[in-house]
Amino acid sequence: MINTMTQTQKTNPSQSRRARDVKQWDIETDVAIVGFGGAGGCAAIEAADAGASVTIFELASASGGSTAMSSAEIYMGGSGGTRVQQACGFEDKTEDMITYMTMSAGPQADAAKIRNYCENSATHFQWLVDIGVPFKDSFHKERAIMCLTDDCLLYTGSEKAYPFAQQAKPCPRGHNLQVEGDNGGPLFMKIVSENVDKRSAISVEYEVRALTLILDDDDAVVGIVVRKNLQELNVRAHQGVILCAGGFVMNQEMLAKYAPMLSHGTVPIGNPGDMGSGIQMGMAVGGAAINMHEGFISLPYYPPASMTNGILVNDKGQRFINEDVYHGRMGAFMLRQQSERFYYVLTVDQYGDYEKVSFMGAEVAATGESVAELEEELGLRTGTLQHTIEVYNEDAEAGEDTQQHKAAQWLEQLQPPLVALDVTPGRGVFIPYFTLGGLDTLPSGEVVNPQRTPITGLYAAGRTACGVVRRAEGYSSGMSVGDATFSGRMAGKAVAAAQRN
Amino acid sequence: MINTMTQTQKTNPSQSRRARDVKQWDIETDVAIVGFGGAGGCAAIEAADAGASVTIFELASASGGSTAMSSAEIYMGGSGGTRVQQACGFEDKTEDMITYMTMSAGPQADAAKIRNYCENSATHFQWLVDIGVPFKDSFHKERAIMCLTDDCLLYTGSEKAYPFAQQAKPCPRGHNLQVEGDNGGPLFMKIVSENVDKRSAISVEYEVRALTLILDDDDAVVGIVVRKNLQELNVRAHQGVILCAGGFVMNQEMLAKYAPMLSHGTVPIGNPGDMGSGIQMGMAVGGAAINMHEGFISLPYYPPASMTNGILVNDKGQRFINEDVYHGRMGAFMLRQQSERFYYVLTVDQYGDYEKVSFMGAEVAATGESVAELEEELGLRTGTLQHTIEVYNEDAEAGEDTQQHKAAQWLEQLQPPLVALDVTPGRGVFIPYFTLGGLDTLPSGEVVNPQRTPITGLYAAGRTACGVVRRAEGYSSGMSVGDATFSGRMAGKAVAAAQRN
Repeated sequence: MINTMTQTQKTNPSQSRRARDVKQWDIETDVAIVGFGGAGGCAAIEAADAGASVTIFELASASGGSTAMSSAEIYMGGSGGTRVQQACGFEDKTEDMITYMTMSAGPQADAAKIRNYCENSATHFQWLVDIGVPFKDSFHKERAIMCLTDDCLLYTGSEKAYPFAQQAKPCPRGHNLQVEGDNGGPLFMKIVSENVDKRSAISVEYEVRALTLILDDDDAVVGIVVRKNLQELNVRAHQGVILCAGGFVMNQEMLAKYAPMLSHGTVPIGNPGDMGSGIQMGMAVGGAAINMHEGFISLPYYPPASMTNGILVNDKGQRFINEDVYHGRMGAFMLRQQSERFYYVLTVDQYGDYEKVSFMGAEVAATGESVAELEEELGLRTGTLQHTIEVYNEDAEAGEDTQQHKAAQWLEQLQPPLVALDVTPGRGVFIPYFTLGGLDTLPSGEVVNPQRTPITGLYAAGRTACGVVRRAEGYSSGMSVGDATFSGRMAGKAVAAAQRN
Repeated sequence: MINTMTQTQKTNPSQSRRARDVKQWDIETDVAIVGFGGAGGCAAIEAADAGASVTIFELASASGGSTAMSSAEIYMGGSGGTRVQQACGFEDKTEDMITYMTMSAGPQADAAKIRNYCENSATHFQWLVDIGVPFKDSFHKERAIMCLTDDCLLYTGSEKAYPFAQQAKPCPRGHNLQVEGDNGGPLFMKIVSENVDKRSAISVEYEVRALTLILDDDDAVVGIVVRKNLQELNVRAHQGVILCAGGFVMNQEMLAKYAPMLSHGTVPIGNPGDMGSGIQMGMAVGGAAINMHEGFISLPYYPPASMTNGILVNDKGQRFINEDVYHGRMGAFMLRQQSERFYYVLTVDQYGDYEKVSFMGAEVAATGESVAELEEELGLRTGTLQHTIEVYNEDAEAGEDTQQHKAAQWLEQLQPPLVALDVTPGRGVFIPYFTLGGLDTLPSGEVVNPQRTPITGLYAAGRTACGVVRRAEGYSSGMSVGDATFSGRMAGKAVAAAQRN
């Protein structure tokens, strides 16, 4: 036993092994999947339905992953609209969805991946319905981060905000499961798990840690080493291995090295298995890890939707972003300012709403019977906040935000008495964060090296891969579970079609 | 010949080879160095002086690399000051230099590497003097990006600017070679090359391309495959391989994938060999590539120094950075704004200086006999630029920039007539750029994997490694050649002390 421990402690995912050194294969399967969250589950279903035998290795003692911890909104649209979009009167053109997602991903957009996602998104909706995921044909009108009713469709990003709305016709694409409260994730994973259970071609091994990949002499991935009950087992995967082991939000060392900007976050969004081990296993066999510096970081300042009527200012009393953007975009732009404090300024009425609903946790920094008083209490230079609010109020009256282009529906004069919330990162506000970098993959899920040549036998999906989502500043709720489930399916299909070796 | 071509075209740096597959060793050496720029040259000298035999493989037909194309300012200080700092009356404490460089690198700072650099920087100065690099004991007072006289010492970064000066006592650390004009780089590489030539333990192979690393069965690097005259040669390196092959600024694919923000640049700073091949070779054997998203990108708006008296505004007429920072910091903050245009506003006198000296290439966007006229000509909302300049002028009169904390010496009222230059990236202004990511290394130059375990036999230096410099927003001129030469020396020493295998 002591020997075994010493042996296994030495193992780390950055050291792959060779098939020729494997003395015996303990498990044989067509497809080995690491991780049973949204990506792994969908990958398994697709691979099994295409005729492959599948073994899932899950570190935890149950399925779920980060998908089960989420609200499981799913970002879908295009092709004229999903059933729900159509029922709610929205026609969603694929090209508009592509434009929005391309702007969202920015210069690091993966055009092929986005196109594949958008062109097949309505089909993905149908696939989810077919496995039993319930979506109600209803629209949730309120601006919200997630839908707490059982309504389905809502705007979850910056679709209606500058500069997105100017280039892509806005359409709501967040699809919430038909379940009350924040229970979409557990329900979604329950349905996926039931689908896995009823397919005899799929075996699931819980409480098993994937250690490292096994290569043949041609550098193809032919298996994986796992640890179960302190024993190392060699798994032969005849068609390939799919890494669906999550991101690295729980790995402090990797965060410090790759995504230091996430150090401004307060609450990591993920499960304890999000240690980056999947990404590291892929890197160890030559897979390129890309976009590792980017992460989701946000200031969830709504609900209440009325917060959108307020303004965000820095310590110069300046606005710097339209307040009707998604909270991830606001968070990203906040971190880019040279400013030691940030304040969200709102009317007393709006503050009343905030006290009732918000979970941002920001404290009142100052109140003022006049803008001048507020400005002074905040320690801002005389005249600066007054100028900002004077311009804003004139623009609100005229119905056009000439400065930051907030949509007219959110323009309301800020009349004293006013309240300023201290929304400075690091001063008590709730700032969730997660990683957005991972292994570079083709739309098929094949992991590629820095030259974009696929590594035979290796696939990745969900947060282990770098998916369609690339930046906090372009994120919309539902993109993560959307990408995890869709990319899982793509990888499951591709591996099942791969040649046996 | 056709066979050879086919064979070699297939080779890419992401596929390492195994020693057991090597049929014959064509070259044997203690230390193989890839690249003969500043890093490779200094590494070779140190390794040879420690008793090792060295072979340098250089792609070009002469030494030089990007160092020869630079002005070769070298960022040095600490330990009470270099000879030049002391002669010019500056006492430079190591801790101040560490604080400045740590702020400069930001959250991704490598504390051990910065400490090693700063503690040994004055010794590095002496080493350079000993190999014959001439530095004059004189101080160049003017604010400049590089020194065009033969004077040595100058402020080359944001040392005297907010927020750096508030935390670290400012000291000039840019050391310019004793040569007129922008000729530091050629002179520096001439001296390094002469030092290499006179050491019989060093051989140099020009016009040779390094292809990929060779590993033994324990995954130690024991050699390298190179191509010379269309022939592949296997090089056995008994003590190790040092990758000094530059960055990836000339590799469009890698830029798009890893450092998309550099797409705003107009002129890549580097040599044609900066294709990222060194980084890729290291990644192929498990080396971690870090900080790959960061790059130097700048708006070189000075000289003339009088430009610092002007103000930079966005399309809201807002200032957003203190204009006395280094131009890389200004460039970085510009790219972070949600703004479609950027203007540099200056007086007619300052504009006169600009016309004489500047190489920024910005065109006049508007002129105004009053601020209101300028504002209108620029299409800014009425009152916005007027407010900014009113506040700025009041602050200038009072001698304190309450908004962006520009140092008092640069505060001068902006009195009409005024000129606004269009400094928007993409509209004709000169925006140099280069990469700042590379292989993660220990201060010794040992390349490490994602768990920070060294890869036996592999070292990296200069731009192939991720050095002390991590962000445009904290860059100072002289840090690149400083890091290249210093990290080259560290790697040369370490490899010469490594066990033979």
